Amino acid sequence: MIVSALLTSVGINLALCLLFFTLYSILRKQPSYLNVYSPRSVAAKEELEESNKFNFERLLPTAGWVRRAWQPSEDELLSVTSLDAVVFMRIFIFSLRVFGFAGIVGILVLLPINYLGNQLNRDFDISDLPSKSLDSFSISNVNVGSKWLWVHFCAAYIFTGVVCYLLYYEYSFISSKRIAHFYSSKPQPHQFTVLVRAVPVSSGSSCSETVENFFTEYYPSTYLSHSMVRRTNKLQRLTSDAGKLYRKLVRLRSETNTQQRLRCDGCWGLFGRKVDVLDHYGKKLDDLEDNVRMEQSSVAGKEVGAAFVSFKSRLGAAVALHIQQGANPTEWVTERAPEPQDVHWPFFSASFIKRWISKLVVVVAYTALTILFLIPVVIVQGLTHLEQLEAWFPFLKSVLDLTVVSEVITGYLPSLILQLFLSFVPPIMIMLSSMEGYISFSQIQKSACGKMLWFTIWNIFLANTLSGTVLYRFNIFLEPKKIPGILADAVPAQASFFIAYVVTSGWTSLLASELFRVSPLIWSIIKRPFSGKDDEFEVPSIPYHSEIPRVLFFELLGITYFFLAPLILPFLLVYCCLGYIIFRNQFLNVYAPKYETDGKFWPTVHNSTIFALVLMHIIAIGMFGLKKVPLASSLTIPLPILTLLFNEYCRKRFLPIFKAYPAECLIKKDREDENDPRISAFYEKLSTAYRDPALMPMHHPRSTDGHSTPLLQAGV
Amino acid sequence: MIVSALLTSVGINLALCLLFFTLYSILRKQPSYLNVYSPRSVAAKEELEESNKFNFERLLPTAGWVRRAWQPSEDELLSVTSLDAVVFMRIFIFSLRVFGFAGIVGILVLLPINYLGNQLNRDFDISDLPSKSLDSFSISNVNVGSKWLWVHFCAAYIFTGVVCYLLYYEYSFISSKRIAHFYSSKPQPHQFTVLVRAVPVSSGSSCSETVENFFTEYYPSTYLSHSMVRRTNKLQRLTSDAGKLYRKLVRLRSETNTQQRLRCDGCWGLFGRKVDVLDHYGKKLDDLEDNVRMEQSSVAGKEVGAAFVSFKSRLGAAVALHIQQGANPTEWVTERAPEPQDVHWPFFSASFIKRWISKLVVVVAYTALTILFLIPVVIVQGLTHLEQLEAWFPFLKSVLDLTVVSEVITGYLPSLILQLFLSFVPPIMIMLSSMEGYISFSQIQKSACGKMLWFTIWNIFLANTLSGTVLYRFNIFLEPKKIPGILADAVPAQASFFIAYVVTSGWTSLLASELFRVSPLIWSIIKRPFSGKDDEFEVPSIPYHSEIPRVLFFELLGITYFFLAPLILPFLLVYCCLGYIIFRNQFLNVYAPKYETDGKFWPTVHNSTIFALVLMHIIAIGMFGLKKVPLASSLTIPLPILTLLFNEYCRKRFLPIFKAYPAECLIKKDREDENDPRISAFYEKLSTAYRDPALMPMHHPRSTDGHSTPLLQAGV
Repeated sequence: MIVSALLTSVGINLALCLLFFTLYSILRKQPSYLNVYSPRSVAAKEELEESNKFNFERLLPTAGWVRRAWQPSEDELLSVTSLDAVVFMRIFIFSLRVFGFAGIVGILVLLPINYLGNQLNRDFDISDLPSKSLDSFSISNVNVGSKWLWVHFCAAYIFTGVVCYLLYYEYSFISSKRIAHFYSSKPQPHQFTVLVRAVPVSSGSSCSETVENFFTEYYPSTYLSHSMVRRTNKLQRLTSDAGKLYRKLVRLRSETNTQQRLRCDGCWGLFGRKVDVLDHYGKKLDDLEDNVRMEQSSVAGKEVGAAFVSFKSRLGAAVALHIQQGANPTEWVTERAPEPQDVHWPFFSASFIKRWISKLVVVVAYTALTILFLIPVVIVQGLTHLEQLEAWFPFLKSVLDLTVVSEVITGYLPSLILQLFLSFVPPIMIMLSSMEGYISFSQIQKSACGKMLWFTIWNIFLANTLSGTVLYRFNIFLEPKKIPGILADAVPAQASFFIAYVVTSGWTSLLASELFRVSPLIWSIIKRPFSGKDDEFEVPSIPYHSEIPRVLFFELLGITYFFLAPLILPFLLVYCCLGYIIFRNQFLNVYAPKYETDGKFWPTVHNSTIFALVLMHIIAIGMFGLKKVPLASSLTIPLPILTLLFNEYCRKRFLPIFKAYPAECLIKKDREDENDPRISAFYEKLSTAYRDPALMPMHHPRSTDGHSTPLLQAGV
Repeated sequence: MIVSALLTSVGINLALCLLFFTLYSILRKQPSYLNVYSPRSVAAKEELEESNKFNFERLLPTAGWVRRAWQPSEDELLSVTSLDAVVFMRIFIFSLRVFGFAGIVGILVLLPINYLGNQLNRDFDISDLPSKSLDSFSISNVNVGSKWLWVHFCAAYIFTGVVCYLLYYEYSFISSKRIAHFYSSKPQPHQFTVLVRAVPVSSGSSCSETVENFFTEYYPSTYLSHSMVRRTNKLQRLTSDAGKLYRKLVRLRSETNTQQRLRCDGCWGLFGRKVDVLDHYGKKLDDLEDNVRMEQSSVAGKEVGAAFVSFKSRLGAAVALHIQQGANPTEWVTERAPEPQDVHWPFFSASFIKRWISKLVVVVAYTALTILFLIPVVIVQGLTHLEQLEAWFPFLKSVLDLTVVSEVITGYLPSLILQLFLSFVPPIMIMLSSMEGYISFSQIQKSACGKMLWFTIWNIFLANTLSGTVLYRFNIFLEPKKIPGILADAVPAQASFFIAYVVTSGWTSLLASELFRVSPLIWSIIKRPFSGKDDEFEVPSIPYHSEIPRVLFFELLGITYFFLAPLILPFLLVYCCLGYIIFRNQFLNVYAPKYETDGKFWPTVHNSTIFALVLMHIIAIGMFGLKKVPLASSLTIPLPILTLLFNEYCRKRFLPIFKAYPAECLIKKDREDENDPRISAFYEKLSTAYRDPALMPMHHPRSTDGHSTPLLQAGV
């Protein structure tokens, strides 16, 4: 790609960004779009009345929201949102620091050195800049065997040191936040509860009795209560259907005109005799409620051999969690209970062996998906090469020869198509992760986050750099000795693609999908005519599993290309600044926390940064080899080893804090509670906290019809 | 190697075995060798008087000891020795079962198929057998592309299935034994105690106070007491010197002749004035005891930031062990306490970071040793090739041309030299493992056992099969795709070497070093004239770290060569039978258990068997490829995957039982103790169980001199 093509791409994207920015600044002030751009305040019933008044300012694009997003301190953000949101914002702060340092070194030191080399046979004619290849700014342009490469060598060492220092600082900062957050938290059900799977049911007693007997026998002083987990998929469907029907009925009842209520009961409401719709739906609701009642009583027997067991103290729960319970390690398997609202109820595999097998199946499916996904990526690859496109579609030749068209295609289209394909991946990953048998949304999202990250690295980074068939890529990994050389050869060549990728997928995509919220906006416009006022309105939660891998992938690009093609760094810095402001705004206005993992996503961030560093080192080893500076190549080998040792130290120093809270903290918090008079009320709440919502009594009063049928909870 | 050379080697070794067997049968009945062959009964003061009577039968070789070693049941063996010994014997039982099955299939099915092939261009002249190469019996002889190879394919699958079933059975058997042994055990100090390392000492309070405060604060109901760990290397040296001097003094005092007691005090006792030796040594002992006293009081302050903390219940100790204590995971690091007699007192690194670094250093040293050790092995390799030897030492040509000499050299000498070199390795491994900072002999031996195993596999198996330089061997592992082919090419060619190895190193070495105890025998003969009756006599303990890897290596040979060269199996079967009887005999008469890990060595055995299976599969994949049966090669690929999945399942199903006891068992045992009146006496014992023996009061009464100086324990 030449400089002018890059400039075109940047130009188009800048224009788009500006457009989205302006539109957002206007639309966010329109009351009818409040549920798209400020769902949190809608849910809190704030502002609504005030903003209904019309004033002229509403039509002007203003940037006041930027200031409002910038202003709150980290503690304020924590109090309004969750620690997870704060940790997510720390990724941007960390990236800004890394890229800030990298940008200074890269642009001021490395870029001039690269540009002054003449490996790619060019003259120093600065006036010809727009038609220069972007490769002139990359390390490829430095002469073979040049002494200047030692500057790159030093930069790699210094940069690694700085990143490791920042990583250590962030890990330590976030773990202290995590512990402080635990100390300041009120007693919460999940702190006192463990999930017990694989309960060995002896014949003659129910699963619930077995759990009760086991824990009263072995933990008489700390055991409080338990709730069995039941298979309620069908029941959940039925109750949600009943709920919908009930809301429909309520709406219909509010319509006074009885004529409207009469409809034909035949095909599509066109033929047959006329009936009162209210009666019709009322009968249907009665049937449904009968079904729910029947299902509830039948489900009560369908225990899946798993239970939430609550204890009187946090230490009691920790003891049950950390010490193997039964003599058979595959029975009485305990794990941390999620928050009650975080429980993913329709999970299946309580038995140890079923979970294990489903995990294996998911691994196989995930690997297959990751490999098959390469096919569209390869097509995208083809689109970036104009000659190939012309060869495929000769009739397009005249169009493609136009400069604008060719620049749009090489600079913009490829990443857009890739983006489209990628948008289907996160839901698939969520599906795969939920098949693994996790009990909570947070665990599912965390697992999907890891899957997405490796998927992105494999499919975007490696597939784009190591072009060729899937088989070829695999062969490379079977010959580890050649990896540095191949990567060093291929990665710098793709620098221009990734710069365009940052601009398209980073800037525009961020503004369009995050800030402007294109799809929720379209969805809200489409459904407005059909929806009543009473429709449920749900505040969205941030999809960490798709956002975190995206940010981390840009971080990987920045770290890897730091010494190969520093030109990418300013674009990444802009991305980080945009991301920082936009996500702060979204956390304050749009996303409500659905659960709180207390920053458990950070280890993923840390590991991915370490991976990026080691990848950078491997490429450096290969690059110095290619450039015939074997001494630098050998002297770089300690760098990945030192980095991995640093990572190992961090794993030992910080990771345990993210796995469980230490006894010291647990006991201190338990002591606090002992003196708290509200604790007995909390215990009462605790014993019902983990009851399946589908088994709760259903209450749909139908006062106008004169018969109200509260469904009492069956079984329990 | 040709058949006759093998027969020569077997003949020599059989003769040697018979010789050792006869000598042992006679010598074991001589009272003067009782401390070599029955140290356990000597220590128990049994038999001594009876066996002093002379009778003629004493000079006849009898095999009654074989019957006596065979007779005791497993439970009797357990009551006399330890669970570790029983587990060690299970290795032989397991190997016998595996090789029994493999032998039947190998000799009856595979061997004829191999022999009937004509890949190695021979005729079917059976009379020429002695001069045939042993390769005629290996898979190398099967024709390329032959349909018979599918028999080998089926054998690999069936054999893997049988081995996995046996592995599962053994793992389950031993874990149930382990739990039963725990249930039947009396309260023991190590069940109630944890070792706490990296105690964070705040200025102004001693380490001991910090530990006391922490545990009384957080575990007020279960904390019992603690003993600080101190750096006592110097003190231990001093006390042992003092002990030796005291015993010398006592011996001298018993010698009545005062003339003998006078010696010159000058150079070598030749010049200078005559002094009373008794006085001289008495003064020396006084000095030493003063030194000990001084050292004891100074050591009392030298706390190393680690302590043994004892609790009132097993569950209390387990809670402290399993839950991270402090907010910083690198402080208050807890680990299981070893048995008091198992503690390796002079350990150094209480601090987390020091231990970590020393572990890294040990890893590097271990790797270097493993690689450097190849040099003597390569020389041994050279000796097996006569031509090379003749080329090096032309003057030996006439000697080497003699059939007997050449057969001895090719069949016997190489493994003997290898054996000699190998005998230096276990002590080095123990040294390396103790540098890692383990607290107990058992942990050190377990770690050394793993080190020895990999060392043996790398240096004996791989170095012998993959001849060539060290660099060449490394290069192979950098190209994983080629490994199956290279192994399949190289491993069958070394079948004859390994058969000779089994016969030499397995049969003869086992009988000579284990049963006949050559080195203790020689040592006892040498030192007899110099030692008095009162000399300490220590019952030896079995060096698991050198014995287990040896047995496991033979198992690896058997599994790997099962379908390549089944001729090795009968020799291995004989080895296992010999080993079973001999080690039973030794456990009953020679080795006293020094510690009890309750069978923690079994996971090593399991893992090494799985490794052997996977290695066999990899070779099979390569072999079917070499033999141009690509379908069989591809169909073998699922086999290692299935085996590894099986291993993963076993890890989850059984390994946790070997790491810690489940809460169920702990609580049951604790309940038993609650009703036991002896428990308060046990608590008293517990609080002093982990006191450093070097800090115990020293008591050397010198009644004849009239002054006795009991040294009271300093500090505590």
